[in-house]
Amino acid sequence: MIDFSLSPALADLQARVRRFIAEQVIPLEGDPRQGAHGPEEPLCAELTDRARRAELLSPHVAPDCGGLGLKHVERAVVFEEAGFSLLGPVALNVFAPDEGNMHLLEAVATPAQKEHWLKPLAAAQIRSCFCMTEPAPGAGSDPNMLATTAVPDGEHFVISGRKWFITGADGASLAIIMARVPELGATMFLAPMSSPGIVLERNMDTLDRCFPGGHGVVRFDGLRVHRDDILGEIGQGFRNAQVRLSPARLTHCMRWLGAARRAHEVATAYARERHAFGKPIGQHEGVGFMLADNEMDLHVARLTTLQAAWVLDQGGLGLHESSRAKVIVSEAVWRVADRCVQILGGQGTTSETVVARIFADMRAFRIYDGPSEVHRWSIAKRILKGLV
Amino acid sequence: MIDFSLSPALADLQARVRRFIAEQVIPLEGDPRQGAHGPEEPLCAELTDRARRAELLSPHVAPDCGGLGLKHVERAVVFEEAGFSLLGPVALNVFAPDEGNMHLLEAVATPAQKEHWLKPLAAAQIRSCFCMTEPAPGAGSDPNMLATTAVPDGEHFVISGRKWFITGADGASLAIIMARVPELGATMFLAPMSSPGIVLERNMDTLDRCFPGGHGVVRFDGLRVHRDDILGEIGQGFRNAQVRLSPARLTHCMRWLGAARRAHEVATAYARERHAFGKPIGQHEGVGFMLADNEMDLHVARLTTLQAAWVLDQGGLGLHESSRAKVIVSEAVWRVADRCVQILGGQGTTSETVVARIFADMRAFRIYDGPSEVHRWSIAKRILKGLV
Amino acid sequence: MIDFSLSPALADLQARVRRFIAEQVIPLEGDPRQGAHGPEEPLCAELTDRARRAELLSPHVAPDCGGLGLKHVERAVVFEEAGFSLLGPVALNVFAPDEGNMHLLEAVATPAQKEHWLKPLAAAQIRSCFCMTEPAPGAGSDPNMLATTAVPDGEHFVISGRKWFITGADGASLAIIMARVPELGATMFLAPMSSPGIVLERNMDTLDRCFPGGHGVVRFDGLRVHRDDILGEIGQGFRNAQVRLSPARLTHCMRWLGAARRAHEVATAYARERHAFGKPIGQHEGVGFMLADNEMDLHVARLTTLQAAWVLDQGGLGLHESSRAKVIVSEAVWRVADRCVQILGGQGTTSETVVARIFADMRAFRIYDGPSEVHRWSIAKRILKGLV
Amino acid sequence: MIDFSLSPALADLQARVRRFIAEQVIPLEGDPRQGAHGPEEPLCAELTDRARRAELLSPHVAPDCGGLGLKHVERAVVFEEAGFSLLGPVALNVFAPDEGNMHLLEAVATPAQKEHWLKPLAAAQIRSCFCMTEPAPGAGSDPNMLATTAVPDGEHFVISGRKWFITGADGASLAIIMARVPELGATMFLAPMSSPGIVLERNMDTLDRCFPGGHGVVRFDGLRVHRDDILGEIGQGFRNAQVRLSPARLTHCMRWLGAARRAHEVATAYARERHAFGKPIGQHEGVGFMLADNEMDLHVARLTTLQAAWVLDQGGLGLHESSRAKVIVSEAVWRVADRCVQILGGQGTTSETVVARIFADMRAFRIYDGPSEVHRWSIAKRILKGLV
Repeated sequence: MIDFSLSPALADLQARVRRFIAEQVIPLEGDPRQGAHGPEEPLCAELTDRARRAELLSPHVAPDCGGLGLKHVERAVVFEEAGFSLLGPVALNVFAPDEGNMHLLEAVATPAQKEHWLKPLAAAQIRSCFCMTEPAPGAGSDPNMLATTAVPDGEHFVISGRKWFITGADGASLAIIMARVPELGATMFLAPMSSPGIVLERNMDTLDRCFPGGHGVVRFDGLRVHRDDILGEIGQGFRNAQVRLSPARLTHCMRWLGAARRAHEVATAYARERHAFGKPIGQHEGVGFMLADNEMDLHVARLTTLQAAWVLDQGGLGLHESSRAKVIVSEAVWRVADRCVQILGGQGTTSETVVARIFADMRAFRIYDGPSEVHRWSIAKRILKGLV
Repeated sequence: MIDFSLSPALADLQARVRRFIAEQVIPLEGDPRQGAHGPEEPLCAELTDRARRAELLSPHVAPDCGGLGLKHVERAVVFEEAGFSLLGPVALNVFAPDEGNMHLLEAVATPAQKEHWLKPLAAAQIRSCFCMTEPAPGAGSDPNMLATTAVPDGEHFVISGRKWFITGADGASLAIIMARVPELGATMFLAPMSSPGIVLERNMDTLDRCFPGGHGVVRFDGLRVHRDDILGEIGQGFRNAQVRLSPARLTHCMRWLGAARRAHEVATAYARERHAFGKPIGQHEGVGFMLADNEMDLHVARLTTLQAAWVLDQGGLGLHESSRAKVIVSEAVWRVADRCVQILGGQGTTSETVVARIFADMRAFRIYDGPSEVHRWSIAKRILKGLV
Repeated sequence: MIDFSLSPALADLQARVRRFIAEQVIPLEGDPRQGAHGPEEPLCAELTDRARRAELLSPHVAPDCGGLGLKHVERAVVFEEAGFSLLGPVALNVFAPDEGNMHLLEAVATPAQKEHWLKPLAAAQIRSCFCMTEPAPGAGSDPNMLATTAVPDGEHFVISGRKWFITGADGASLAIIMARVPELGATMFLAPMSSPGIVLERNMDTLDRCFPGGHGVVRFDGLRVHRDDILGEIGQGFRNAQVRLSPARLTHCMRWLGAARRAHEVATAYARERHAFGKPIGQHEGVGFMLADNEMDLHVARLTTLQAAWVLDQGGLGLHESSRAKVIVSEAVWRVADRCVQILGGQGTTSETVVARIFADMRAFRIYDGPSEVHRWSIAKRILKGLV
Repeated sequence: MIDFSLSPALADLQARVRRFIAEQVIPLEGDPRQGAHGPEEPLCAELTDRARRAELLSPHVAPDCGGLGLKHVERAVVFEEAGFSLLGPVALNVFAPDEGNMHLLEAVATPAQKEHWLKPLAAAQIRSCFCMTEPAPGAGSDPNMLATTAVPDGEHFVISGRKWFITGADGASLAIIMARVPELGATMFLAPMSSPGIVLERNMDTLDRCFPGGHGVVRFDGLRVHRDDILGEIGQGFRNAQVRLSPARLTHCMRWLGAARRAHEVATAYARERHAFGKPIGQHEGVGFMLADNEMDLHVARLTTLQAAWVLDQGGLGLHESSRAKVIVSEAVWRVADRCVQILGGQGTTSETVVARIFADMRAFRIYDGPSEVHRWSIAKRILKGLV
């Protein structure tokens, strides 16, 4: 039955995370150990230490792996709070791509794989990356253009190809690799990043800076992977990807919603204090309306995320719901961030507040995990087929 | 706890209303007994008869007044279904302003007033109008500019003033009148429309045609109303209006959401069938994206309406939530209607489908019950005060 | 060399037309001889009489046909003034489709055809219609789906097919008919509407009401047309249509720009006078910003129209420029009309001002002469080919 | 008379600049001598050397100061070409704020001041900054909040206050300072940046990086300026600022238009080459429509800039026209930049192309020289007063 209330336990957890972010994470936002390619290792370690002590580390992972075993709706509430600081997801160990990788491993990996990779990931002892996107003419928005190959060779596969936009590659211990096995189709493999045959060519210069390790270009030069290191089954790469897909899209929505709320709070405070033309700027309708639009966009983004998360909790695959949420939320929070820059005026484009950072970091969200255009087309096709 | 499911009973009621609209109401949409000022009395009577037989009449009214006693969330579900046909709200007796007037009477009226006015209203035997809006320089978006006066004269009040945009005035039996009692403030009065001193000057020509009786200009020429016919208490006119306000805004959202869904279904069917440039037009991204945007707008409108209705069901006044919903929904459904016109091409602007009618009828929704600008400003003020 | 000034002669003509519209046309706007399908014949005659006396009739036509021989830039200026009243284009005899038909006849017709048809058209003695658009599965946005056929039979062609959205069919004397001659392709024919074999099935109910004769459904039932009545050459139907296309798109832009300016002036006057919340509503930024956006949209629409007209005056076909102008202008003036409705509040949706009429009449402009989507695609293709 | 053609001389100059940018400037875009605060001095010198050799340096300055004496329309054409590379305006010595400062000095300075400051500026031997904007509670969008004071002391004034967002402060030789002389009003002063009493507190971290010297925080600590170094007259500071205002707003429009065109060309090339879902992405309407919208936005931005420049060339102050152009162009080119990011997908957010840089650098343009909101309000006030 329709209900928009949080359970007392969830409301309590929400409050705890909110306090943790305010007291333990935001004070570290000005920490100099952050570079053009994201927060650096020692800062990440300090953040996860704090979350560990607060018993908030890896809340999405099953308790037997050290997490809180949160359902998707619960994640929606907690991750929004985490996202309130760009460092929050790092602290709680729920940043991309590791959060989604853990989700995938939990769902698909063998017990041995879990022991070997999931546990240290959940403990924030190592990081991972997800090697899917390829430069032209490989797989970008269209996964079927997958060009990296994994050729069987006895008990091993030999992987060759090139990936880019590999978030967190620099510093990762684990690579999850999507490659095409001739005649058997797309397949996922697990490999230590330290393997001979994996070359981190370079880190890319991007507008965003919130992901540990930034985004790398990775080359597989005859990388040998044993068949025990296949994740899931041969030829099931895209099916596995779908396991990761809907939840991963949604957790982006959750985190960025928190960031947008942060920007909105900064802009609101400024609109109350800064005067122009005889009164606080917030009392000019031009600014007040932007605040109102923010409020509505945040509301809509939150409801949409919760509904899609709820569908996942009911056991649905949620492909449509997460696709829809991805577009609605990424565009709504972007509008919020853009308005906050505008309200702050010149300062909005500087590091005087956190807003410029949120703005620049958020831009890619309308693109990754499926650009708005690709999702719109998926939605359209479902409508035309009468599926929604 | 967060839950987006309908109870089995509500899902069943939804299905019944949907079937009723499809089988009993839509076939009457082409009925000629509809004019420039709305469906005519005999058609209205036939529609309400059908709903009465289907036991769906006045579902929002308490059972002791003949209704189904639906809560706000339940209304959201049922009214959306009703709105799927522009005649649906008339059939179920949940059209504006009568639906809101019944809600108001139920909350505020004396037992005698209920017996005299609410029961026949709930039975769809009579219609009512709500006399609030005034021509310049009186009360429009700004209710404090109320110019109509009610001057005490013994046991009576003598009401003088002019109102316009009085929906349903033509044909109404009951007028609920907002007037200012000198020194005591805005007050509501009940009066038969047949009273000497009430003059229906004319009906206005409007873009919309779905409201029985259209929109009238009403003059009070020394109308005498006995103090027993005060609705609520003297000076409590605006407070009473607030009782009506949030729910009435929301029921507009519900009904227009249904209408927008209808337009979307018509446009979708057309996009599947009509070919241009070598394929069904829906398979052109330009059209497909519009369908996808419709789907997202409808989704967001529905979630927002449900959430606000749920707040009312929890006992909240819901002023912020209904204000927010009014803006979000009125703008979202308008975008849907506009896109459907565009998808249908030339036909979208004609009576070949119901879409042009929905489009024209819906335009005023961004204005009445508070234009988007007034609501944005209310929201902004709450934000600046830290209330939301 | 870049110059944005009007020549003295053009500025003078502009002033004359402006005065004519204000003094001779606007006073007739409330004339009752207007129905659901446009202004009626006697009113049209009175309007054109007035223009004739003011020596402003058919200004786009060559002097030897009774016009002023205006170039396209001059038309832009004059037609905008005419469009300031929805009756203005009727008065000056520059309404659609006749204005475009005259342009086409002037460019393509034989001397005999001009004598027979163009002269009385230019003198506003008769009206014409352009029979191109067909119901599904015929030619709509995609002209190549042309289904009406013209089968040779000796010196004649026998035309069979069905057209709709035929503006001005009811009351027209001349039909220009697009039909496909087997193996020879699309061809235009001239025929008296009174011919046996032409059936006006019905008039369509549309949102707009400004076109004399409304929009009809026309059936050709074995209509016999002599080969002397071919307009242009056999198989050159689409090429001829292109002669008409760019200018006709632009003259729509010109006229609707005038209408949008009118709506803006009405809204501006209201924003100055109507008070709410303590001051004239125009002094609320929420309204003031809408006025500013109107001003910018009108400016951009005017510049774009002038530039495209100038390209035509240089001898260009202007397909790209007129396509681009069609999208820019139709969307800009629509935003203006929509904002004006919003500024006027409830009144914006009624006949209390001319704005609701402009709003409703204008909606189809984003569709006819190529929906925005079709033009966007044409523009995209040119970009991809490196043509622009 | 309306004319949209360039004179042969101007078309030739346009071609020369275009070639210069392509051959001499773009190859330096990857030069490492660029930092977080803009291109560094040696790179700037190399760029201006190249322009000097090409006889394109300081084209806006009068010939007797070493420039080409271009009128505003001519600047519109040339500066757009310069803006095609973010380094182009640096090369031609037409970047902000120096270009506007030179314009101001040329209009207002004494012969001695011109000799001392304008000539070396025009020769690109030194740089300058314009010290107007102040941190809260000083002058931001509202210039009347000017807090910096200049107190007379014999033949000198003692200036105290704090400025920020002072573009190019780091490395500038000349500061133009706006300060309030008690009782006499806002006044402009010229001072060497090396003066005792001028402290560059720090450089701000901003999203943009294209301005030499970045944006500084400058403090005046009892800076002594001789009355010979007043620019213009005492109390005429705001009047002088208006001399600079309209042209400076417009030259921003010109340069950013060039940058947006560049982004569009990069995105177009990508849309032609990159395949997804079976064809080049540009052949998907979702992408094609974005290209078409770019084309229309660029067109509208160019026309609007030219028209406003033409008004200046006619001797008008152009306050309304430049205000309108500022909003139209800044918002149009921003939409272009944003779409180009989206078309490029992930790459759009990286330094793989120049687009991410253009996107980030351009964001502040909707804010500086008057945020869109302030201009909208100015436009609205003019409309309400019947001035436009």
